[in-house]
Amino acid sequence: MKVLGIVVEYNPFHNGHLYHLKKAKEKIKPDFTAAVMSGNFTQRGEPTIVDKYARTEIALSLGVDAVFELPFVYATQDAGGFAFGAIGIFHRSGVVTDIVFGSESSDEKFLSTVAQILYNQPWRYQEILHVKLKQGLSFPNARKEALIEYVKEKNILDPERVRNIEKSNDILGVEYVRSILRYNSKIKFHTIKRVGAGYNDEDFKGKLSSATAIRKMIREGNFELAKKALPKESSRILEREFSDGRGPVFWHYLDRLFLYKFRVMERDDFKDIYGFVEGLDKRFYEYSRKARSSQEFIEMVKAKRFTYSRLRRMMLYVLFGVTKGFMESVNKYGPQYIRVLGFTEKGRKLLSYMKKTTSIPIITTPSMYEKFLQGDDYEINVELYKKMFLYDIKASDVYAILYPCETYREGNVDFKRKIIIK
Amino acid sequence: MKVLGIVVEYNPFHNGHLYHLKKAKEKIKPDFTAAVMSGNFTQRGEPTIVDKYARTEIALSLGVDAVFELPFVYATQDAGGFAFGAIGIFHRSGVVTDIVFGSESSDEKFLSTVAQILYNQPWRYQEILHVKLKQGLSFPNARKEALIEYVKEKNILDPERVRNIEKSNDILGVEYVRSILRYNSKIKFHTIKRVGAGYNDEDFKGKLSSATAIRKMIREGNFELAKKALPKESSRILEREFSDGRGPVFWHYLDRLFLYKFRVMERDDFKDIYGFVEGLDKRFYEYSRKARSSQEFIEMVKAKRFTYSRLRRMMLYVLFGVTKGFMESVNKYGPQYIRVLGFTEKGRKLLSYMKKTTSIPIITTPSMYEKFLQGDDYEINVELYKKMFLYDIKASDVYAILYPCETYREGNVDFKRKIIIK
Repeated sequence: MKVLGIVVEYNPFHNGHLYHLKKAKEKIKPDFTAAVMSGNFTQRGEPTIVDKYARTEIALSLGVDAVFELPFVYATQDAGGFAFGAIGIFHRSGVVTDIVFGSESSDEKFLSTVAQILYNQPWRYQEILHVKLKQGLSFPNARKEALIEYVKEKNILDPERVRNIEKSNDILGVEYVRSILRYNSKIKFHTIKRVGAGYNDEDFKGKLSSATAIRKMIREGNFELAKKALPKESSRILEREFSDGRGPVFWHYLDRLFLYKFRVMERDDFKDIYGFVEGLDKRFYEYSRKARSSQEFIEMVKAKRFTYSRLRRMMLYVLFGVTKGFMESVNKYGPQYIRVLGFTEKGRKLLSYMKKTTSIPIITTPSMYEKFLQGDDYEINVELYKKMFLYDIKASDVYAILYPCETYREGNVDFKRKIIIK
Repeated sequence: MKVLGIVVEYNPFHNGHLYHLKKAKEKIKPDFTAAVMSGNFTQRGEPTIVDKYARTEIALSLGVDAVFELPFVYATQDAGGFAFGAIGIFHRSGVVTDIVFGSESSDEKFLSTVAQILYNQPWRYQEILHVKLKQGLSFPNARKEALIEYVKEKNILDPERVRNIEKSNDILGVEYVRSILRYNSKIKFHTIKRVGAGYNDEDFKGKLSSATAIRKMIREGNFELAKKALPKESSRILEREFSDGRGPVFWHYLDRLFLYKFRVMERDDFKDIYGFVEGLDKRFYEYSRKARSSQEFIEMVKAKRFTYSRLRRMMLYVLFGVTKGFMESVNKYGPQYIRVLGFTEKGRKLLSYMKKTTSIPIITTPSMYEKFLQGDDYEINVELYKKMFLYDIKASDVYAILYPCETYREGNVDFKRKIIIK
């Protein structure tokens, strides 16, 4: 049996996603297709334009058989953490045989070689890394420079391609492969050459526009035009959500929450938060007092060594109180459960297989999560399981406050919304 | 030299306030009049309709010579804490000789007798109180019942009047007198019979309407009519604030902040917060998930033994992280500084006198507050001084987020706004 796994945000599901899904299926010819999808917050540190339930519904309408939630604590991390969470879910499900992801280079050998260096950390690589760190480079930069120098010395890859790895989606590809190595997983990986607009391309390009461009169009009130880039089912469900008042949700809706939260904090309070390196506590403290909006705040805090996405993620960590100690466990042990957001009639069969193969609890009904708190049935880190899961709950409950229509702002969302069955 | 002290919120300054001020001056014939005024949050647990700077300007235009800020931690407390803060500032200023307050009964003997029982705690009174507490009454109720029984036994006051004390403004009067006793202050107190609408009367009564009714009119977009109840200078400055976009500010602007804050908290996190008695942590935890707005939340949490004002105050304590341990110090040591919000040319003279008589630091320029952190010049509790002052700063910085116009939402408000001189 072949089960295809794909990792997605579907924010929102557009023509490029549909193309990718089709190509992946052609390549693998799977019996089932499962997606790990971010919940209500993304890797860019933003709330999704519609909630995870609507996005699950769309995915199931367009060819995915089952949707699993990428826990908040992984969905809002950089490529490394994001991939470690997603691959962890596929690996621990025990059923996924192949994953396919988009890649700029679509060069599996290249991705594999880089991933192996990062995973195996050869002695010479470590030596260079050590020197770079001593020179005062930040860890991500030191790592990159060490990689470049190492492949140059060993003459195994084109150093220029390594230098450009972050600019492309390839960094995510490398991290998927590295995660497969970390879990010692038998999952095979495949790439598809990306088409259409780049991930971060803000310009609307018609039929094949990026999710960023589509969200921008919607924000500017141009949903009719944005539809050109969306499959019909995606348009229909988005339209329903918007007219019901459950969307669109934008990052700036968090405006007052960010400023309130940062302004009641003292400078030292930032130090425990995941991702805060030297000096950033001062910047957050001072600029949250100076700025009049979150946008102004992020422009002030921005420095060369931080991307906007990274800063937005850190703003979320502060909002949710995500600490360094906790994230150490998150990134050491991997996901402790598989939250099923929805499945098709066909996907139901996949889930029954999975019940026999999974090594972590499968949560279809969130109110049952307490059942696994004894941890008898599975070898999980119970403390981590609980805390990780509660972050998903909180993420939904804070997201609910952002719904344009007050009627839907009730909390305990995950305990009330039913699993999506198509 | 006679200096009159009055305690006010001026939210907003209306005809009743002007009448009270005139009557008080007629009674005392003071050389100077000083007001202790709540900052940006009130005893009802709400943000003020315009900020403390605008309200200071109005007060100075209408006959007050100097305005001192009642620190956030006192301004948002019940009658006992509120009075302890206000009287503390007057007492420690060393210049205030007389205070005047409005009273339903205007019976100074009655207020004095009750205050003395509460302050001296005669043995027999304590005995009854002990019994009432053992019967399971909450402290405020046990205290009231003990008072009633005690005055009945001793035949010193009409028990029915004691029973009604909370319904009137007399409870505040009693607390002012008790605070004078607690500080062993030489300040003399006087009462004025209240006129016009009751403090909480929501109906607009024309020229003599309550502040509550006036805010309601403004909220309903009826500022033109509300003006009937406002002195000219008050109308003028409010109008300027509104048209500049610095008001009006309403409680429901805190809506998303409350729900966000409560929903990221676990039940146990509420237990440390000031005012949380048994079971209330559960109610806050559960209903913050159930409610879709703060209004809905407060209706759900509301129970017979809590007033709306008390619940709103507690919501603020959670928002600002005001803990039990800290408030114990606040209510034991009293105010540690006198923040001057503004003064008239005449008031300037009062301030120079005060500099010689005060027993706590006078803060005219907030950025100078660090000067007193050594505590050499005054016998203050430096830790408490700092923390208390930082709450005022935070209150202003969170209030700033609520300004309708984004232009004014910058933080560090207190360090940037100049003292008001009329």
